[in-house]
Amino acid sequence: MSRQGFLVVLSGPSSVGKDTLLEAVLGHIPDMVYSVSATTRPPRPGERHGVDYYFLSDEEFRELIRNDGLLEWAEYCDYLYGTPRAFVEEMVAQGKIVISDIDIQGAEQLRRTMPDGVFIFLMPPSLEELRRRIMRRATDSPEAIASRMARAEEEMHSIVNYDYWILNADLAQAVEDLKAIIRAESLRVKRGGYKEVGESL
Amino acid sequence: MSRQGFLVVLSGPSSVGKDTLLEAVLGHIPDMVYSVSATTRPPRPGERHGVDYYFLSDEEFRELIRNDGLLEWAEYCDYLYGTPRAFVEEMVAQGKIVISDIDIQGAEQLRRTMPDGVFIFLMPPSLEELRRRIMRRATDSPEAIASRMARAEEEMHSIVNYDYWILNADLAQAVEDLKAIIRAESLRVKRGGYKEVGESL
Repeated sequence: MSRQGFLVVLSGPSSVGKDTLLEAVLGHIPDMVYSVSATTRPPRPGERHGVDYYFLSDEEFRELIRNDGLLEWAEYCDYLYGTPRAFVEEMVAQGKIVISDIDIQGAEQLRRTMPDGVFIFLMPPSLEELRRRIMRRATDSPEAIASRMARAEEEMHSIVNYDYWILNADLAQAVEDLKAIIRAESLRVKRGGYKEVGESL
Repeated sequence: MSRQGFLVVLSGPSSVGKDTLLEAVLGHIPDMVYSVSATTRPPRPGERHGVDYYFLSDEEFRELIRNDGLLEWAEYCDYLYGTPRAFVEEMVAQGKIVISDIDIQGAEQLRRTMPDGVFIFLMPPSLEELRRRIMRRATDSPEAIASRMARAEEEMHSIVNYDYWILNADLAQAVEDLKAIIRAESLRVKRGGYKEVGESL
């Protein structure tokens, strides 16, 4: 097969709505698969191994790190989280579009390990709206919310490191924008898709 | 205004269908304008100055060349043809998307003068179909047709110099692909459009 797939990284500040956008497109874009993360956190009720996460022991996770088996990883609240390299690389080789929703720090690691990936920054309509979204889901103290807002404002500056931006104001428009970016990227000459249709040329 | 427009160059081998695709999208993409060429050839019945072409005298055209006023130019059947720089640059500065359909040689010149442009290669479904299209419109001798076919085959190799490819088999699909590329390019972080929506950020 001459057509290569690619990794699509959907990132942006905390609470901007990455999951919602991802859920809205999964299953609606041909050849798209979700990059399942690995974690050492125990499964919550209803979570399935290999679907929601790869649930690994601490030892299994650390062996992946040692063997360069993760495209990125981080520790969060005493648990380890990471993106398994083998799945992404196999899917890309099969011509699939692998999508990952990940925080700004994870995206920065992925930019180094997957430089051919497509990096998309999801923007809130305004900082006021981002504050509302953070408060809506947070059960934290006012201090913790203020700290998350300060971090989100800081993270907005990272946009300059991304390939594309999408405004997450109207979900339907954001879905259309994400689809357009993925279609356009699949038509990039450097990804070689034209060789498949042009074999008789 | 923080948003820059950009030049979209639609090119490909002779008779691949650039005009048809261009006509199908013009007027259907917001902020898109057509790059009107300059020529020294006399107007044909119905052709309007400033709409179909800028009809210039030989002296006017050569003055444009001397003043670096053309992004590309060429001589064809004793007449001069070129792309006026001022119109394209003014429209891009106003945030417009300027589209130009041009042959492979013209596109190569544009790549040097407008490196931020979006270069799209339109592909025929097959060489047999391209031959049919060349014969359908050609009133030439078999030798002339053979020569045009040989040139078209040669031009197919230029695809590697382009950003994107579009297969011109089904016109509706080609229109969708062109729209997706233009939408995606308008969402490129490097084009700065996010600064407009993010002024409150």
